[in-house]
Amino acid sequence: MSIDAFLEGFTERDWQEIDADGSERVRFAMVGMGWWTTEEAIPAVVGSDFCETTVAVSGSVSDPSEVEATDVERAIDYEEFVAGEAADAYDAVYVCTPNAMHLDHVRVAAELGKDVLCEKPMEVSTERARGLTAVCEEEDVALMIAYRVQTDPAARRARELLRDGVIGEPVSVHGGMSDEMLSFVDDPDHWRLDPELSGGTTMLDIGIYPLNTTRFLLDAEPVSAYGRTRSDQPEFEGVDEHASFEFEFEDGVLLTGSVSHSACEESHLRVVGTDGQLLLDRIFFPGRPRELVVEREGTRSHVTFDQRNQMREEFDYFAHCLLTETEPDPSGEHGVGDVRAIEAVYEAAERGERIEL
Amino acid sequence: MSIDAFLEGFTERDWQEIDADGSERVRFAMVGMGWWTTEEAIPAVVGSDFCETTVAVSGSVSDPSEVEATDVERAIDYEEFVAGEAADAYDAVYVCTPNAMHLDHVRVAAELGKDVLCEKPMEVSTERARGLTAVCEEEDVALMIAYRVQTDPAARRARELLRDGVIGEPVSVHGGMSDEMLSFVDDPDHWRLDPELSGGTTMLDIGIYPLNTTRFLLDAEPVSAYGRTRSDQPEFEGVDEHASFEFEFEDGVLLTGSVSHSACEESHLRVVGTDGQLLLDRIFFPGRPRELVVEREGTRSHVTFDQRNQMREEFDYFAHCLLTETEPDPSGEHGVGDVRAIEAVYEAAERGERIEL
Repeated sequence: MSIDAFLEGFTERDWQEIDADGSERVRFAMVGMGWWTTEEAIPAVVGSDFCETTVAVSGSVSDPSEVEATDVERAIDYEEFVAGEAADAYDAVYVCTPNAMHLDHVRVAAELGKDVLCEKPMEVSTERARGLTAVCEEEDVALMIAYRVQTDPAARRARELLRDGVIGEPVSVHGGMSDEMLSFVDDPDHWRLDPELSGGTTMLDIGIYPLNTTRFLLDAEPVSAYGRTRSDQPEFEGVDEHASFEFEFEDGVLLTGSVSHSACEESHLRVVGTDGQLLLDRIFFPGRPRELVVEREGTRSHVTFDQRNQMREEFDYFAHCLLTETEPDPSGEHGVGDVRAIEAVYEAAERGERIEL
Repeated sequence: MSIDAFLEGFTERDWQEIDADGSERVRFAMVGMGWWTTEEAIPAVVGSDFCETTVAVSGSVSDPSEVEATDVERAIDYEEFVAGEAADAYDAVYVCTPNAMHLDHVRVAAELGKDVLCEKPMEVSTERARGLTAVCEEEDVALMIAYRVQTDPAARRARELLRDGVIGEPVSVHGGMSDEMLSFVDDPDHWRLDPELSGGTTMLDIGIYPLNTTRFLLDAEPVSAYGRTRSDQPEFEGVDEHASFEFEFEDGVLLTGSVSHSACEESHLRVVGTDGQLLLDRIFFPGRPRELVVEREGTRSHVTFDQRNQMREEFDYFAHCLLTETEPDPSGEHGVGDVRAIEAVYEAAERGERIEL
């Protein structure tokens, strides 16, 4: 590819086929009004090309005006959601509730005939994640798992470079992510700290980023898993505060790294190949100066770019799939793969041995 | 520390106490004249402050003039070395022979009363590495293991920043190293590919870099080890071409990463702490533009510097220790720690389970 075309097309939506003239919009019900939905999802949809938020489903918000910067017409509670209230006012749902509730909320939506964009991890167990996929298949609604990194320009361009063989054959991947969860979750009863509701605190919550992005970039699946978990602070008693992981992929590539909910904000993914390497820097956090570094034979190129709102790209991509009747790409089955592999990491951590997938 | 002092002192030899006026020099016998000795060690000593090469010990070089850019006065073979030939012409030895020969060569030197700078890994097994330390203790000669990264300015400044708490408490470390070994070792009988002579091909040869540098930076020891090994190309039959590792340190820090002898040249070590992170980029190869990146609360500082010859710093440091009668720092005992931990990685890879150290 010419450098000209590379720069020109870096932030281009390679998936977009219809014009964004505002004539067609997918109307979303946002299910679960925690901070991620109110601070990231809803503001992203405001100003999107193909969608709008019309309904908010929540246990706490009863007045739509409480949701800032949004087109929300109606706020309903979970009982009303289950009863099919306001179902005429939305076409699809975005499910961002505690992990253990995804299946139930998706089932309600699917039975109402609504398409589903469901936050990752899909559910707290492989069994429930599979159940979630089955429900959507049975009701014949679209299902996409919300891996926003997969629609980030840096990750999409990295995948193209890998496919073009720019760094040769991938040999190993290094990844990591960390943040200070307790600084933005000051409630000791927060669901992420409850293994029943979360299914796992750090590996499942953020370890999923390097794992899923590697699967996306390499178009390959892990065949064995190993990991260690550790908890220091009392808030993390009974759950994993820190975790390390090692996945062996089907083509032999070794993905190694670690994640922590009690360290500085940091995220990266490095793919080392036979001829060069790619580094996706700060890639897993939205609203950060993400960067793609490409190196080959000692020559290194740092690509910074006009950042795109990761959540807006994701919502527009999903809405565009619905409008064009295209199968959305991070499928339910794809999502099950992460839950299964991370379950194996937890099992490996407990048994101190590698688990075959 | 003020930024002024930091920049001013970045490449300063914090260990140097005597003037480099050329009045006192340690005379080295270079034991083993492979490419590392002839292309890296000997040229580094030419132009050093505290040492010179006076003797070459080799199975193949009989004419000193064959050794380019050196002060070598005499070239002797191993039989002559054992017989104590030219012993008056050198004060210390640099041992850079196949790993399985270190103990025997060090024993000869120690019995001749010569101080020893021995390449890493010390030996092919913990037992032999311990034997090497014992021999030097018995003969009362100084022993240093040649971890050149430990005298690199970037690593020394990183350690100071860590000790000063600049990134808070370390939480996790990510490391990796790779090169294309077959491109500079075109002999299928090369000792690195022979497990009897090497003790291990990739993990022991280059996995030792991220492990040892982490031990140096954190001043901490691993308490358990896990790893995977893999070989694809026929040249690596029976030895490890690629390896992943995971070490849990005594303070809970998780070091994860992988190494490969069949990938592009790449090396890095990233320390993630509670308040920030440090990245040592390109750190494990000499003659590369090594860089220290320090990040805290989203502010990132890239420190490039007037590069120092890693081998010269190492030789001068060791010679300075001898001249000032100071104990050299990467001791034999320190070197044994790496061999032991890497033996555990190989055992873990074979058994598929974590090994306690």
